Amino acid sequence: MSEMTTEILEQNLGKIVLVKLKGGKSLRGRLKGFDQHLNLVLEETEDTTEAENVKKLGLIIIRGDNVVLISPPPPR
Amino acid sequence: MSEMTTEILEQNLGKIVLVKLKGGKSLRGRLKGFDQHLNLVLEETEDTTEAENVKKLGLIIIRGDNVVLISPPPPR
Amino acid sequence: MSEMTTEILEQNLGKIVLVKLKGGKSLRGRLKGFDQHLNLVLEETEDTTEAENVKKLGLIIIRGDNVVLISPPPPR
Amino acid sequence: MSEMTTEILEQNLGKIVLVKLKGGKSLRGRLKGFDQHLNLVLEETEDTTEAENVKKLGLIIIRGDNVVLISPPPPR
Amino acid sequence: MSEMTTEILEQNLGKIVLVKLKGGKSLRGRLKGFDQHLNLVLEETEDTTEAENVKKLGLIIIRGDNVVLISPPPPR
Amino acid sequence: MSEMTTEILEQNLGKIVLVKLKGGKSLRGRLKGFDQHLNLVLEETEDTTEAENVKKLGLIIIRGDNVVLISPPPPR
Amino acid sequence: MSEMTTEILEQNLGKIVLVKLKGGKSLRGRLKGFDQHLNLVLEETEDTTEAENVKKLGLIIIRGDNVVLISPPPPR
Repeated sequence: MSEMTTEILEQNLGKIVLVKLKGGKSLRGRLKGFDQHLNLVLEETEDTTEAENVKKLGLIIIRGDNVVLISPPPPR
Repeated sequence: MSEMTTEILEQNLGKIVLVKLKGGKSLRGRLKGFDQHLNLVLEETEDTTEAENVKKLGLIIIRGDNVVLISPPPPR
Repeated sequence: MSEMTTEILEQNLGKIVLVKLKGGKSLRGRLKGFDQHLNLVLEETEDTTEAENVKKLGLIIIRGDNVVLISPPPPR
Repeated sequence: MSEMTTEILEQNLGKIVLVKLKGGKSLRGRLKGFDQHLNLVLEETEDTTEAENVKKLGLIIIRGDNVVLISPPPPR
Repeated sequence: MSEMTTEILEQNLGKIVLVKLKGGKSLRGRLKGFDQHLNLVLEETEDTTEAENVKKLGLIIIRGDNVVLISPPPPR
Repeated sequence: MSEMTTEILEQNLGKIVLVKLKGGKSLRGRLKGFDQHLNLVLEETEDTTEAENVKKLGLIIIRGDNVVLISPPPPR
Repeated sequence: MSEMTTEILEQNLGKIVLVKLKGGKSLRGRLKGFDQHLNLVLEETEDTTEAENVKKLGLIIIRGDNVVLISPPPPR
């Protein structure tokens, strides 16, 4: 993992991130932790795959090999 | 696996967790064990993929490479 | 593989287990052997994917990377 | 690969085995060789995926990562 | 990763690149970083999979194993 | 790769082989080279996936992880 | 990668090659670089998947694990 990736993830600890998974699932949650495989820990997670049917998942561990992309919130 | 992941899983040993697998299967069971590949041992497991057709699976071993996410129960 | 996984599999040697594979196949057979990749040897195996069309497979070797989960029989 | 797997395959060298592959293909052929990745050499192979349309393949090398299961013939 | 790949990516740091992912997603964004697995950091990213429905993603981290191809902009 | 696989491939250098790939493609070509990953070099290759629409490909390099099986021609 | 593969690719540096990717995409471009994973650099690339709708891609980096086969042009 490049230093930049680590840096971006560290800067976003405690912030809401968008995570897209293989298979099309979209999640939105507060980033609590990560490792070099992009295994992620999110809290207050919502499955936002279907905009009209958001499901609360709360605290989750994501196995990194499912991750397509991670998007931090825009800076204000 | 990050220390945080290990810590979360250890805190949830003996508790009911939700596990989502590649291919769309959803399982709910009591976490008995895990390793660094996210191989999991669950007991009292139910396949909850179809809400109207929950199937009892009891004690199971899950091969970690099938795991998408693990969600511990909300704290009370 | 965690010690617990090894222990559970060892306790179930000679017993009937349910094995679910990637792609949806369900097998039921007597566990004769296993290794750390979850390569499995089953005997008296039946393909129970279609409940109304169970097929006898007898002795089989399963390549571990196909395994989703293994479920031992409930204790009596 | 467990010793048992090696032993079973060695006992079946020269015998007809059934091999199921990822993607659903079923093959039947005489086991001539194998290695620890379950790369297989079969001869007199038939593609039996469609029971009503068996195709002769003769001598083949199968790349092990395609193998789901191998079933030796029942003992007589 | 070949030296040429590294060189091309370095020359395009700060420039808009097109990235195609497994599963068919097309992204367009400014290349901020990369590593030897082709993990990428893009900013001002747009999901251009559907030409008539471009979605803004902003800053993203792409896990390299999802990448099919990367195309820098044509030189002027 | 087992010695037998190497031996069979070596014996078939310069001969027409059938290669089946993941995803269903069938190729037929003259085996010019191979390595331990089953990366293959074929010449005079034809894509025979559709029997009624054979396409000439000529000299090709096949990445080994796509190979399902290789079938040498029957001896005469 | 076998020496022969390296040799063929080196002989075709600067020449137009056809590349077929997993998922069915066909590309045609001038080979500028490659490495042992079959990561490729092509220039003047066209996406020729749909014969009636060729798209210009220009310079691209292809992640090697997507490659099914590479076909150099026929010698004249």
